[in-house]
Amino acid sequence: MDDTLVAMLLFTTIHHTAQWGDSNDGGVRRLTLTDEDKEVRGWLAENVKELGCTLKVDEVGTMFAIRPGSDNSLPPIAMGSHLDTQPAGGKFDGILGVLGGLEVLSVLKENSVKTRNPIAVVNWTNEEGTRFNSGMLGSSVWAGDIGMEEAYGLKDVDGKTFRGELERIGYLGTVGANHKKNALGAHIQLHIEQGPVLEETGKALGVVTGVQAMGWLYVTVNGRCQHCGTTPMDRRSDALLAASKMIAKINEMVLKLEGMSTVGIISSERPSPGTIPGKVRFSVDLEHLDDDSRALMVERAKKICSLIGELKNGKIDIEDTWTSRRVRFNPLCIDTVREAATALVGEDGYAELPAGTGHDSVNTSYHCPTSMIFIPSQNGISHHPSERTNQDQW
Amino acid sequence: MDDTLVAMLLFTTIHHTAQWGDSNDGGVRRLTLTDEDKEVRGWLAENVKELGCTLKVDEVGTMFAIRPGSDNSLPPIAMGSHLDTQPAGGKFDGILGVLGGLEVLSVLKENSVKTRNPIAVVNWTNEEGTRFNSGMLGSSVWAGDIGMEEAYGLKDVDGKTFRGELERIGYLGTVGANHKKNALGAHIQLHIEQGPVLEETGKALGVVTGVQAMGWLYVTVNGRCQHCGTTPMDRRSDALLAASKMIAKINEMVLKLEGMSTVGIISSERPSPGTIPGKVRFSVDLEHLDDDSRALMVERAKKICSLIGELKNGKIDIEDTWTSRRVRFNPLCIDTVREAATALVGEDGYAELPAGTGHDSVNTSYHCPTSMIFIPSQNGISHHPSERTNQDQW
Repeated sequence: MDDTLVAMLLFTTIHHTAQWGDSNDGGVRRLTLTDEDKEVRGWLAENVKELGCTLKVDEVGTMFAIRPGSDNSLPPIAMGSHLDTQPAGGKFDGILGVLGGLEVLSVLKENSVKTRNPIAVVNWTNEEGTRFNSGMLGSSVWAGDIGMEEAYGLKDVDGKTFRGELERIGYLGTVGANHKKNALGAHIQLHIEQGPVLEETGKALGVVTGVQAMGWLYVTVNGRCQHCGTTPMDRRSDALLAASKMIAKINEMVLKLEGMSTVGIISSERPSPGTIPGKVRFSVDLEHLDDDSRALMVERAKKICSLIGELKNGKIDIEDTWTSRRVRFNPLCIDTVREAATALVGEDGYAELPAGTGHDSVNTSYHCPTSMIFIPSQNGISHHPSERTNQDQW
Repeated sequence: MDDTLVAMLLFTTIHHTAQWGDSNDGGVRRLTLTDEDKEVRGWLAENVKELGCTLKVDEVGTMFAIRPGSDNSLPPIAMGSHLDTQPAGGKFDGILGVLGGLEVLSVLKENSVKTRNPIAVVNWTNEEGTRFNSGMLGSSVWAGDIGMEEAYGLKDVDGKTFRGELERIGYLGTVGANHKKNALGAHIQLHIEQGPVLEETGKALGVVTGVQAMGWLYVTVNGRCQHCGTTPMDRRSDALLAASKMIAKINEMVLKLEGMSTVGIISSERPSPGTIPGKVRFSVDLEHLDDDSRALMVERAKKICSLIGELKNGKIDIEDTWTSRRVRFNPLCIDTVREAATALVGEDGYAELPAGTGHDSVNTSYHCPTSMIFIPSQNGISHHPSERTNQDQW
C-alpha cells in the first residue's frame, strides 16, 4: 500500500467517525463522555481488536490499544491523541492523531511487521476540557498532576459528575491511571498545527521541538461608575478606558520582547452607553519560547497595569491564575521525526517549530520520551467547524 | 413658613413616597406603570386635589395638576419632572422636581397667592425609559417627536404593552398628548445635578443654561477569531486589541477638543482566554457644548476607527445611532432662575452650567420657554441607591 492510499484511508475514517457528533456545518461537536463519545469509542474498540490489539481502559476512561511486540515486558511505544472535540469543533483537532495511529496499526498488520516493543494507540479522555473544565485531564491524571478524586468530582453544567458519566457510558476502567502502573516507552502525537505557519511558508510537515511557556493573568480594574454626561473628564475613574490603555501597552511591550500576548476576554459591570464603567475584568495570555523572558513579560505587564491604575485613582487586582513552563521534547524523538520528514518531503519540505498550545504530549513528556508531528491547518483555523487540512500536502 | 421649613416638608414627602418601590438599600425601584408607580401617582392625585388643583391625565398617562390663575385662558406655567426611577435608582432623580412643585403649590395656597397664569405641576410618564425602552417618552410624545402608536406599541421584557399597562393602572387619559392641544406657558424643572461640579466647587445651586450636544456611535470591529498560542503576532487581526487602541485614541482626541467621551459598553464574541477575539462591538458617547465641535469629534472618531481597522486588515462598521443637538434654554427663564438664586444664596452661591444629560425640559424647550435648576449631588452619584443631596445646602 503506498502513502497516498494510506492517506486516503485515514481521510475515510476521519469522515466516517465524524457522524458521531456531526454538527451539520462541516464540523463535529463531540463533548467528552457523551453518547457521541461513547459511539466513537465503541467504533475504535472494535477496530483495534480486529487489528490484533488488546484494549485496556484506565480509571479515567483513557483507552490503550496494545499491539504485542516481540518483548512484551517492554513498555509500549504509543501514538496518542484524543477523540473529544470543542463544542463547535472541527474534524481534525485530536482525532487525526488517534486515527493516524490506527492507520499505522493497519499498515503494520498488512505487512506482518513484528516490532520489539508493543505498539499502542491511545485515546486520552477529556483533552478539550470544555464539558468538564480541566483540559488534558486523562493525561494529567496519568502524569500525576491531578488526583483521581479531583477528576472524579468534576461536574458539567448540569451537575453530572465525571465519574458518573464514565460509568454511564461504560468506560470506568480498572487499569491504574498512572504513569508508573501503566508506563509508556515513548509517546508520539500527530496533530494539525492549529496555526498558519506551515501553510504560509509552504511546508508539508512540522517537526515539533516543544511547547512554549504560557499562562494567564486576570486583571480587574476598579474605577468609579458614574454618569457619562455629568462627570467632567478630569474627575473620572474610567475602568474601561484604563483597561484599553493597559491592553494596548501590554501589546507594545510584548512585541519588543518577541513574545505573544492575547486579551481574549473582557467584561464590564453594569454596561450602558451612558455610564462610565466602574469595574472591568480582562484576561491576558502571555507566551514565550523562553521561561525567563515570559517571567519578564509577566512582571512588565503587572507594572503597566499598576501604573495606569495609579494615574486614574483606581484599584487594580491582578491574579496569576495559570502558568505552564516551557517544554522541550526528547531530542531522540525529535531526530526520529526529522529523519522521517526528510525521507518523506525532503530537506525543504518541513519546518521545525514549537507548539503554541498544550497537548497531551506535554504530560507524557515528563515521564517518557515524547515528540509531535504537525500537518498544516488551512488558513490556520482550528477549534471551528471550518477546520481543515490539505490532503495533497502529506 | 420659612425656607428651611419648606425644605423640611419636601424632605418628608420625598422619604414618604419612597415607600412605593423602596429597594431596602436606601434607594427606590419604581419602574413606569408598575403597581408602585400607580401608588405614587394616586398619592400625588390626592394631594394636588387637596391643594385646589384640577387633574388632567393625557393619552400617555402624563399628569397635569392645574391650580387656576386669574386668567385661565392663558397656558399654565409648569413645574415638571417625573416620578419613575431607574431599576436601581435613588430617591431624588426626577422625584425632587415633582415634589418640589407640590411644595410650591402648598406655599401658594397657604399664602393665598393668586397668580395670573394657572400654575401646573407635571409628572411626565416614563422619563427613564428602562421598562419601555424610550427615554423621556411622555414629553417626547407631547413635543411631537414620537407618535402615539409607536409609544402605545412599546413592550417591556415580559411582552406587556405600554398602552395595556397604562390601562391596567388606570392612567390611560383622554387629554391630547400634544403641545398644541395641551399647551404650557413655560416649564421649569428642579433636578439634582447628577454630577460632582456643584459639590466640588462649593455651590448650593446650579442655573442651567441648556443641554450639551450628545449622541452615540456603535463601532463593530471585525477581525479574525484565531488560536492565541499558534497564531504569530504579525499574522493576527485582533479585534479587541484594535478596539482598545481606538478607545484610547478617541479619548486623546476628545480631550484636545475639550469635549467628553465615554465607552460604556464593550462586548466580544466567543470570549475565551485562549482565543484572539474575532468580533468586538463598543459604544461611544460623544458630548460637547457646541454642535459643530461635536460633529468634528464624530468625524475624527470615525477616522481613528477606520485607520486602525486598516492597519489590522479588519473591517470596521460604524453606526451613528443617536444624536441630540445642543439645547439653549430660554434667556428670560435663565434670568429668572439666576435672580432667584442670587436672592437666596448670593452671587457666589450658585454656578451657571449646562446639563450633561437629557431631561423632559429638552422636549418642552422646543415648544415653550424652559429652564432648569440644579441642586448638588453628593459625590456626584446618581442612578444609584446611594443618590443623595445635602439638605443644608438649599
